Amino acid sequence: MTTDAAIDSTGTGLDTGAHQHGYISDKDRYLARMKRIEGQARGIAKMIDDEKYCIDILTQVSALTRALQGVATGLLDDHLKHCVLDAAKLGDDAAIAKIQEATDAINRLVRS
Amino acid sequence: MTTDAAIDSTGTGLDTGAHQHGYISDKDRYLARMKRIEGQARGIAKMIDDEKYCIDILTQVSALTRALQGVATGLLDDHLKHCVLDAAKLGDDAAIAKIQEATDAINRLVRS
Amino acid sequence: MTTDAAIDSTGTGLDTGAHQHGYISDKDRYLARMKRIEGQARGIAKMIDDEKYCIDILTQVSALTRALQGVATGLLDDHLKHCVLDAAKLGDDAAIAKIQEATDAINRLVRS
Amino acid sequence: MTTDAAIDSTGTGLDTGAHQHGYISDKDRYLARMKRIEGQARGIAKMIDDEKYCIDILTQVSALTRALQGVATGLLDDHLKHCVLDAAKLGDDAAIAKIQEATDAINRLVRS
Repeated sequence: MTTDAAIDSTGTGLDTGAHQHGYISDKDRYLARMKRIEGQARGIAKMIDDEKYCIDILTQVSALTRALQGVATGLLDDHLKHCVLDAAKLGDDAAIAKIQEATDAINRLVRS
Repeated sequence: MTTDAAIDSTGTGLDTGAHQHGYISDKDRYLARMKRIEGQARGIAKMIDDEKYCIDILTQVSALTRALQGVATGLLDDHLKHCVLDAAKLGDDAAIAKIQEATDAINRLVRS
Repeated sequence: MTTDAAIDSTGTGLDTGAHQHGYISDKDRYLARMKRIEGQARGIAKMIDDEKYCIDILTQVSALTRALQGVATGLLDDHLKHCVLDAAKLGDDAAIAKIQEATDAINRLVRS
Repeated sequence: MTTDAAIDSTGTGLDTGAHQHGYISDKDRYLARMKRIEGQARGIAKMIDDEKYCIDILTQVSALTRALQGVATGLLDDHLKHCVLDAAKLGDDAAIAKIQEATDAINRLVRS
C-alpha cells in the first residue's frame, strides 16, 4: 500500500518523509525468526513422514503456532510504533486510517 | 511414545494389534499440507526481505496460522478416531490415558 | 462411565437414550465456575461504567476468556472420557459420530 | 471525540485524570454488550444445571468467547484511536508508552 521507498532512514523510522516500515530496523532478526519457523515446518513434515506419534507432532504444531504469533505481535508493535506514529504527524485522519488497518489485522489474528 | 510399528495395517488403523497412527492413511495429504505451509513461511520471509507493508505480511501470517490449525485439528481428529478407539478396545483405562494426551494437546492448541 | 439416567433427554436428538453426560459428576464445580465467570462479566461491566482505563479492562477480558476456555476444555475432556467411550461400547460408528461432534467443537474453539 | 486534552501526562503511560478513554463515547453500547455477555454466561450455567448435551454447551461457550473477543478488539481499537493519538500529540515517548501497553494487551489476547 505504501509505495514510497525508505530513502533516508535514521533507523528510528520516525523522521523520514519517505516512510520506512517499522520492522525494517529489525529486518535481520525477523528473517532469522522466519528461517527458524520454516525449519520447524520442515521438521513437522519429517515427523509425519517418519510416522511419529500424533500427539508429539501436535506439540510441535503448537510451538510453531506460538512462534508465528510472536512474529505477528512483533510486526504489529513495530507497525504501531512507526507507521502509526509517522502517520499521526500528518494528522489524525492519516493515523486513524493506519490504526484501522492494524485493528483489522488484530481481529484476523485473534480469530486465527 | 508408541514404539510399535504398523505391521499389518488394513488402512483403517482400527483392527491391528500393532497400532497404526490415525493420520497415516492420510500421510500424503498431510505431507502436501506441510509442504505448502513451509512454502508460506518462505513467502513471508521473502515479503520481509522485500520490505513489504507490515499489514500485508500480517495477513499472510494469519493465513499461515489458520493453515497450521487446520493440520492440528485434522491430526487430533485422526488421533481420536484411531488411537483412542483402538485403545478403547483394550479397556477404558487405556482409552482414558490416550484421551488425556488429546486433552492436553487441545489445551496447548487453544492457548497457542 | 455412568451408563444410566438421563432418560428423556430431548434437546438436540443427537444425544441418545440411557446415557449421562460426562460433566454431570462434576456439575457443581462447573456451576461454580460459571457463576464466577458471570461475576467476572459483571465486574468488567462495572469497570466500563466507572470509566476505568481501557488496558485494565482488557486485562480482565483476557482473564475471563481464559476462564471460559478452561470450562470449554474441561467439558470436552469429559465428553471424550464419557460420551465417546460409552459410544465406543456400542460400536465404532457410534463412537466416530460422537468424535466428529467433538472435532467440530474443537474447531470452533480453536478458531474462536 | 476526546473533549479535553491530556494536560498533565507524566509520559509514563499511566492513565491521568485529564484524559478521556476512547471507549467512553461508546460506553452505553459497551455496557449493553457486557450485559448480553453476562446473560450468555447465565444461559450456559442454566444449560449445565439442566444437564444439556455437552457439545451444545460448547457451542454456546464458543459464541460467548467470540462476543468477548469482539469487546476486546473494540476496546483496543478505541484505545489506539484515542489514548494513543492523544498521547502522540504530547510526543513520541508518551505515545510509545501507550502503544507498549496496547501491544502487551494484544499479546495477552492472542495467547488467551
